[in-house]
Amino acid sequence: MYREEIKVLDCTIRDGGLINNHYFTDEFVRAVYKALSEANIDYMEMGYRASRQISPPSKYGEWKYCDDDKIRQIIDGIESNVKISIMVDAHRVAEQEFKPVDQSPVDMIRVATYVKDIDKAIVMCQKAHDLGYETTVNIMALSKENDFDLIEALDQLAKTPAETIYIVDSYGYFFSEQIHYMAALYEKHLPGKRLGIHCHNNQQLGFANTIEGIRKGCNLVDGSLFGIGRGAGNCPLELIMGFLKNPKFRLDPILKVIQDYMIPMREELEWGYLIPYMITGILNRHPESAIKMRKTANKDKYADFYNEILSEPDMVA
Amino acid sequence: MYREEIKVLDCTIRDGGLINNHYFTDEFVRAVYKALSEANIDYMEMGYRASRQISPPSKYGEWKYCDDDKIRQIIDGIESNVKISIMVDAHRVAEQEFKPVDQSPVDMIRVATYVKDIDKAIVMCQKAHDLGYETTVNIMALSKENDFDLIEALDQLAKTPAETIYIVDSYGYFFSEQIHYMAALYEKHLPGKRLGIHCHNNQQLGFANTIEGIRKGCNLVDGSLFGIGRGAGNCPLELIMGFLKNPKFRLDPILKVIQDYMIPMREELEWGYLIPYMITGILNRHPESAIKMRKTANKDKYADFYNEILSEPDMVA
Repeated sequence: MYREEIKVLDCTIRDGGLINNHYFTDEFVRAVYKALSEANIDYMEMGYRASRQISPPSKYGEWKYCDDDKIRQIIDGIESNVKISIMVDAHRVAEQEFKPVDQSPVDMIRVATYVKDIDKAIVMCQKAHDLGYETTVNIMALSKENDFDLIEALDQLAKTPAETIYIVDSYGYFFSEQIHYMAALYEKHLPGKRLGIHCHNNQQLGFANTIEGIRKGCNLVDGSLFGIGRGAGNCPLELIMGFLKNPKFRLDPILKVIQDYMIPMREELEWGYLIPYMITGILNRHPESAIKMRKTANKDKYADFYNEILSEPDMVA
Repeated sequence: MYREEIKVLDCTIRDGGLINNHYFTDEFVRAVYKALSEANIDYMEMGYRASRQISPPSKYGEWKYCDDDKIRQIIDGIESNVKISIMVDAHRVAEQEFKPVDQSPVDMIRVATYVKDIDKAIVMCQKAHDLGYETTVNIMALSKENDFDLIEALDQLAKTPAETIYIVDSYGYFFSEQIHYMAALYEKHLPGKRLGIHCHNNQQLGFANTIEGIRKGCNLVDGSLFGIGRGAGNCPLELIMGFLKNPKFRLDPILKVIQDYMIPMREELEWGYLIPYMITGILNRHPESAIKMRKTANKDKYADFYNEILSEPDMVA
């Protein structure tokens, strides 16, 4: 699949940070930046620009805040065409500061939001746009939204300067047909906007659904190294690169950083296809209960976990 | 997706046997049979009916031969509606014996073949059919066949009593669009035949491609417990069950046998998504080179492995 407009964003540090409270070492973040630069990936997401009031530094590493100076320190001296993005949660905006784009190493600000917070997302997005950043709005947990509310949100977004609107399958619930449906819905209600796609891997469909998004017109696609990310993780970046035949990409720096860093890291941090995440995926639920049970002695009691969820009020009462 | 005609075949013991030379314990095979019976899976494939001349018993466990008496011993006393299948390689037929179906615990014989051996497959299939068995022909390594030869094989198969013809993506190379193409080609050239699909997971597309096969009319679909199988393994059975909403299925016995047997087994045997299998997948190659390198000290030298393959004669010369 070669379509020059398709751009690839690596969210290793940002989504991966959700499983270690954003405590990645400088060495690792720099190695990822270097590999992505050599591979000619389009964007690297460094983490969140979170509020220190809401999320205190006693609890989180530096990639929760992505201060401009910290980013500068990482990328210093590495030749690169990779653009840098950071994410902001629309429902957690407080005292965060954003310099005008020409005074910052950041190129793009992505606003993550639920449909219920779409107005907050629009305000945040407008602010980022006015400061000169590229902007996206990433609508999370789409599989739990009803179409009436979602369409209202899309119609609002259509009138904003947000450049890219993302389909986000936070729970890893969608199959190809739902992705096709969402892409058509977005296209209809967001004339002229670029579409993005960010998929989770609960049912081993992260890559497959990303391809389906691409087939249906998404031109900004997310992946992460060896699929690292919360719960079952994301679409693996290396697979997207195998699918996109854009001659500018080089796969070997990516394979190298996976062998040098991701394989040892997988011994310490858990992500990927595991049955509890598959269960929350097929039942269209937030992975939180699965993340919790994986930290207990019963972490492999899959049948019990499944039956517990099936007995919860929203399943039977 | 509910379509009553869709039948599910578990190939845990057969395809899984390819990674341990078919040395599964009786206890394990019996536990799988029991779980599949409780879950109401349609077929269980016990292994191969291989020739002892060609494949000597000094090298392989009993599931390489699947003698009728051995199967009887396993299933004895377990209440079940699961039909039993065995596989035969068309290019490795010698002195194997097949009793008439009413004197055997086996219900279905599946003939695995390359296009080049299609005539052998047809002879074998006719023999099985005449003995009263259900029959399938599984055309392996489709992604390496040219359409002229493949269509000739399909046209020949159309005239045989083989009931089901399988799309087999042995190398885990296909994306959704190739699956759609193959399903349409099969349908055109095999009027009235049931279509089957068997996918490998090199690019984490085993389940996704199985769904695409189902969407395009395949009614016999293969999966294995936790995706066990050669190299990157197969489409996970538990995911197929989550997709098919047929009310007869029960997921919890499957989750139970995974937690009790597959998780400990994964500590001893290697299968699933690993970068070397991803590399052979994207390059449309047999996984043999990846299987071999995983047994060496360089098993995580992915970039070197990739560059080695890229320098082989059929890639550059």
